[in-house]
Amino acid sequence: MFLKNCWYCAGWDHELSQGRDALITRRIAGESLVLYRRPDGGVVAMEDRCCHRQSPLSLGRKEGDALRCMYHGWKFGPHGRCVEIPGQTQIPERACVRTFPVVERDNWIWVWMGDPAKADADLICKAVGPGHPDWNLRTSKVRVNTNYRLELANLSDLTHISWVHDQTFGGTTVYASTRPKHTLKPRGMDTEIWLRGVPAPRFAQHLFPPDMVFDLYFLSQMSFPCNFILHFQVYAANNAAGAAAEGPSNGQLMLDTFSSQAITPCDADAVDYYYSWGASKATDAPGLGVLLYEAINEAFLEDKRILEGQHQRIKEKPDFRTVDYAHDAGPGKLLWLLDKLLKEEAAEQVA
Amino acid sequence: MFLKNCWYCAGWDHELSQGRDALITRRIAGESLVLYRRPDGGVVAMEDRCCHRQSPLSLGRKEGDALRCMYHGWKFGPHGRCVEIPGQTQIPERACVRTFPVVERDNWIWVWMGDPAKADADLICKAVGPGHPDWNLRTSKVRVNTNYRLELANLSDLTHISWVHDQTFGGTTVYASTRPKHTLKPRGMDTEIWLRGVPAPRFAQHLFPPDMVFDLYFLSQMSFPCNFILHFQVYAANNAAGAAAEGPSNGQLMLDTFSSQAITPCDADAVDYYYSWGASKATDAPGLGVLLYEAINEAFLEDKRILEGQHQRIKEKPDFRTVDYAHDAGPGKLLWLLDKLLKEEAAEQVA
Amino acid sequence: MFLKNCWYCAGWDHELSQGRDALITRRIAGESLVLYRRPDGGVVAMEDRCCHRQSPLSLGRKEGDALRCMYHGWKFGPHGRCVEIPGQTQIPERACVRTFPVVERDNWIWVWMGDPAKADADLICKAVGPGHPDWNLRTSKVRVNTNYRLELANLSDLTHISWVHDQTFGGTTVYASTRPKHTLKPRGMDTEIWLRGVPAPRFAQHLFPPDMVFDLYFLSQMSFPCNFILHFQVYAANNAAGAAAEGPSNGQLMLDTFSSQAITPCDADAVDYYYSWGASKATDAPGLGVLLYEAINEAFLEDKRILEGQHQRIKEKPDFRTVDYAHDAGPGKLLWLLDKLLKEEAAEQVA
Repeated sequence: MFLKNCWYCAGWDHELSQGRDALITRRIAGESLVLYRRPDGGVVAMEDRCCHRQSPLSLGRKEGDALRCMYHGWKFGPHGRCVEIPGQTQIPERACVRTFPVVERDNWIWVWMGDPAKADADLICKAVGPGHPDWNLRTSKVRVNTNYRLELANLSDLTHISWVHDQTFGGTTVYASTRPKHTLKPRGMDTEIWLRGVPAPRFAQHLFPPDMVFDLYFLSQMSFPCNFILHFQVYAANNAAGAAAEGPSNGQLMLDTFSSQAITPCDADAVDYYYSWGASKATDAPGLGVLLYEAINEAFLEDKRILEGQHQRIKEKPDFRTVDYAHDAGPGKLLWLLDKLLKEEAAEQVA
Repeated sequence: MFLKNCWYCAGWDHELSQGRDALITRRIAGESLVLYRRPDGGVVAMEDRCCHRQSPLSLGRKEGDALRCMYHGWKFGPHGRCVEIPGQTQIPERACVRTFPVVERDNWIWVWMGDPAKADADLICKAVGPGHPDWNLRTSKVRVNTNYRLELANLSDLTHISWVHDQTFGGTTVYASTRPKHTLKPRGMDTEIWLRGVPAPRFAQHLFPPDMVFDLYFLSQMSFPCNFILHFQVYAANNAAGAAAEGPSNGQLMLDTFSSQAITPCDADAVDYYYSWGASKATDAPGLGVLLYEAINEAFLEDKRILEGQHQRIKEKPDFRTVDYAHDAGPGKLLWLLDKLLKEEAAEQVA
Repeated sequence: MFLKNCWYCAGWDHELSQGRDALITRRIAGESLVLYRRPDGGVVAMEDRCCHRQSPLSLGRKEGDALRCMYHGWKFGPHGRCVEIPGQTQIPERACVRTFPVVERDNWIWVWMGDPAKADADLICKAVGPGHPDWNLRTSKVRVNTNYRLELANLSDLTHISWVHDQTFGGTTVYASTRPKHTLKPRGMDTEIWLRGVPAPRFAQHLFPPDMVFDLYFLSQMSFPCNFILHFQVYAANNAAGAAAEGPSNGQLMLDTFSSQAITPCDADAVDYYYSWGASKATDAPGLGVLLYEAINEAFLEDKRILEGQHQRIKEKPDFRTVDYAHDAGPGKLLWLLDKLLKEEAAEQVA
């Protein structure tokens, strides 16, 4: 169901303060986790389940770098080993709570849900965090009650922008007649798209003359479980020379943006969606950041509505025979790769 | 569980406007439907499920007489065939959404859930719609979280009026000592009841002297899945001559009413209840329509409370052994007939 | 799952008035019950399920000492036998609703859920009711969405007071280093604890000098299904003589309290918790009753939070392998005894 040997985003770094009560809970890939910061600022991710009687440790108390279960007072160090059992001097060897490798990068907290020995920080997706000096990014998050496979399919076929996002990112149907360039990677897929001579996206059309057209560039890097890192650029179409037929736009770069999106499967029926968007400092302008922020928030509610509806319908008829089309190539490749990796992990478990 | 070759009420005609967004969804007999009006006023009922990836078409957009899925832009004609796939010229033969035969009659929208070849408008129950020139009818609807078989049983034994509706339609216990005349039909049951020399129904007792009595006449026509068409008349009891012992009242007709009730099974645990009630123009009087409207709304909340409670208890103990009595004859016949038809349909499926 | 031959608390006596509508419903050990008072003041407990068509009798009407189902008017005497079926003179022998033996004692209503022939009022736990002349007790109740076994474990290991109730009953961690004296009984367990020279409980610390210490005495009597009768006393520690090392405190009795707590399993996922607390009239003081009342209400919300969280986690991983410690002795003995009695009942059923 879920890849285990994989980094899952557990949220934005600012969600986890040093406050005494700063224990946050997450449901990730079917596991209940509690996260907190040590006094040195590092982050601990533990199973949210005391090994004594399964009481949630997130109802516990942070004590230095340790976490005390507030049912019977068992105290666990940052590596999950029990270090104190009130009323008993001997601590059983099995008195441990499972912990998960954590890396903070790009203002995101990443948790490795599989074999800790295999945790490799190089497998974390390359994002641009809101702290990056070259970009002005705003961040947000949303819960979507859908299966993460539907998110993967959604993000690997951008033709949906014309329809789902008709009132926000859309404004042209040329997406469907544009062939994206998909490149399968060992644990994901890159996709490149050039749209030439199209109107501005709907949310920005009021800023330009009605007949002004643009070249749009998308480079997305998807990686498992469900991360979507998007470099999106807007060029003024070169009306004098005519749009370039292939390769980069021959117009002037007007807007250079970056959006980092980490979608974390909670369980089979929900995802937590953490995202940012904003312009490069070189192309930013007063008020632009808010415009992008409002547009992406609105657009992600459009996705939420569709993906939750789709999830409901699929649950009604899981065996319904669907019909494919050309633009399913992207989702098809990506989900094929996901299933391949899932099978490999399952085989390793057996071996 | 549900008869398929059967007309199901999908609501009042006024619920489905010509507005651009006028897509309504219904759950009928375990299927999710979307309904809309074509520009010519006709109604289309489709499965609320795009054949591409199961996205709800009710989140789509009406375009003329067609419906466009707003996930990837597939467009479906009123007969369910896909007529456009953005980004692809060829349309697969299987790219169809199931549609359902629709008939509008008596201000109700009727949908045939089975084999379209068998859809016969003559099987629609004979009702009196609010548009009928001889009657002043008010309409309403209510969701009841119960199984429709409990509704069938409820409506085919009117002795419950004395108890469930003690504060509204009731006011006498003579229902129980009155023998209804049940006549089984090929797809339902007619029931005729005469009550003689009884007080006015509770909701109208304040209009008459306390000792004034009436003859009440009920003729109900029940048909599957769960329609209840009721002709209800009130006669002043003929105190001089004495009430007629048999046959029609020998008193003066004071109130002639009609109530059309279509109860649509959504799934095993809910029904949508569409109903009307009102007096003939010949016997109507100022304020009477509102009195009837308030009474039936209140009474149907009384039924809702009982039938939802009963449904919960049955789910707790589905195998509980119950005890029958004389007035179960009506429900017994009707449910026996339902089960017979269900079996016949199941046999046809196998054949 | 539940002991049947056992008295279950159905609530405080004042919850069941003589009002015409005074029908209360309870879910007890997986059964739905309706309770009402007869004109003579006695209490009737019936299955909340008409034997005709399973309609809830709690939607019915009290008539003298009988209860009429308000669906079709069947009337049941206080012993559950049907005494009237409107429209039919003969009453089938099977037309009975199950009733349950009831005893009112200590202002609680007790219901026997098993074989009526085995109902023995001597098996009701010995409590002190709010009507007792020697005590000033306040009462309350709370619903907790947890399994009753977790409540049994909670109440038979009071070391949790230091942690769960850190802000209310707690204020010292000496509970964990104190050995309780558990005594297994045929249908429960008594536990005696002496804490010596400890600070006042947190909720009362503002009343005393910071360095003042006390001896605390607990005598709890737990009995199945889940009753907890607690005699709790506070002594001023005898600083002159030094605290007694064993046996009763040698200090002055400052506060003598009694708390009676009946926790009724509704089903596998919920309990109804009825409780009282207060001081003896001999040791009571102005405002003290309210202080105790506020403290116990707050404390029981602390338990609710932990026990509901624990229940959720256990449902996520019912087979999770937990780790025991010394203070599990109390819960271990008690749950061992419960399982033994459950097995004996199951064996009787088969025999």
